[in-house]
Amino acid sequence: MKIIVIGASGTIGSAVVDLLSERHTVVRVARTAGDYHADLTNPDSIRSLYEKVAPFDAVVSCAGSARFKPLEALTDDDFTASLSNKLMGQVNLVRLGQRYIQDGGSFTLTSGVLANEPMHGSAAISLVNAGLEGFARAAALELLPRKIRVNVVSPPWVSETLVAMGKEASGGMPAAEVAKAYVESVENRSKDGEVLDARKFA
Amino acid sequence: MKIIVIGASGTIGSAVVDLLSERHTVVRVARTAGDYHADLTNPDSIRSLYEKVAPFDAVVSCAGSARFKPLEALTDDDFTASLSNKLMGQVNLVRLGQRYIQDGGSFTLTSGVLANEPMHGSAAISLVNAGLEGFARAAALELLPRKIRVNVVSPPWVSETLVAMGKEASGGMPAAEVAKAYVESVENRSKDGEVLDARKFA
Repeated sequence: MKIIVIGASGTIGSAVVDLLSERHTVVRVARTAGDYHADLTNPDSIRSLYEKVAPFDAVVSCAGSARFKPLEALTDDDFTASLSNKLMGQVNLVRLGQRYIQDGGSFTLTSGVLANEPMHGSAAISLVNAGLEGFARAAALELLPRKIRVNVVSPPWVSETLVAMGKEASGGMPAAEVAKAYVESVENRSKDGEVLDARKFA
Repeated sequence: MKIIVIGASGTIGSAVVDLLSERHTVVRVARTAGDYHADLTNPDSIRSLYEKVAPFDAVVSCAGSARFKPLEALTDDDFTASLSNKLMGQVNLVRLGQRYIQDGGSFTLTSGVLANEPMHGSAAISLVNAGLEGFARAAALELLPRKIRVNVVSPPWVSETLVAMGKEASGGMPAAEVAKAYVESVENRSKDGEVLDARKFA
């Protein structure tokens, strides 16, 4: 398969690229690195990426940022940035990508366990993650006639990220383990409209 | 209790006002009718409403629109309108309202069963409804120290709406029945961060 990985230079993304490259052709996309550049917040940038890379069989997104702050401190700008980046950026990968992806292909997006297991400071992120999962369930229904699947991988805290934050790696899951859920989404044709909890694929 | 009902002139809202008025003081808010006017998409309008009505014990939102269209047909504007109205409008009722609401109070928002039970055409609405539920779970955690609760009522299709669309009333639930879930959210102090499926309160 020819698979586009968005956020290919990130912690999870590079682990996903490593696993998928073992048996697929991977096109690595990042904001400033990779085979191609794209800006998730800019629909024209996404469209232009697809124009250049089509035809392809799968899109895997390990990209998207959202703001982590107490509810009292979240500003209008924090919500706008979170919605336009991690939420609408990934929604647009599907919306705009449906015209370019091969029949029988798949989209795999990234949410996170904060969707259903919130913590202090996660109000904007929990909104974004849960919204993305709701969108994927609905979009999967509509793309069914072309056998195009839409799934969401929900990662827990990643060990490498925790270490970078000066915390214990043991509180998270290694990126190489998290990456297995993405492979499952791309390769297992029984998965459609599903949220794959990465903790189940360790 | 003094309870603000947003969307008080709508199908569900007027049924909620009827039930709550039996034993509470209800302040009816709508875009053009009611005791006060407010525009959900305008944070200044929400802030100004709260300034006028405070102090109060509960906010119940039966308001918010989102666009129903096939995924192929949903435009950037459809998503922007859906996000700024039903999603961020209701998020802002909580964000801006936390400064005005009494300790021990509650916010009750409206999502819908399309959050988890999508249908063809619901991609934007499923996103909005699920996102709202994710936000409420997280916001509830942060407001717990002040014993302020945040719940979401998830209504099915409403009979009166179906009739207005020229369909069979029996495919939906009467607004007077749906309204019971809102009363439960406001009066039952054990409910917090929960999604109340209105079908369970008939």
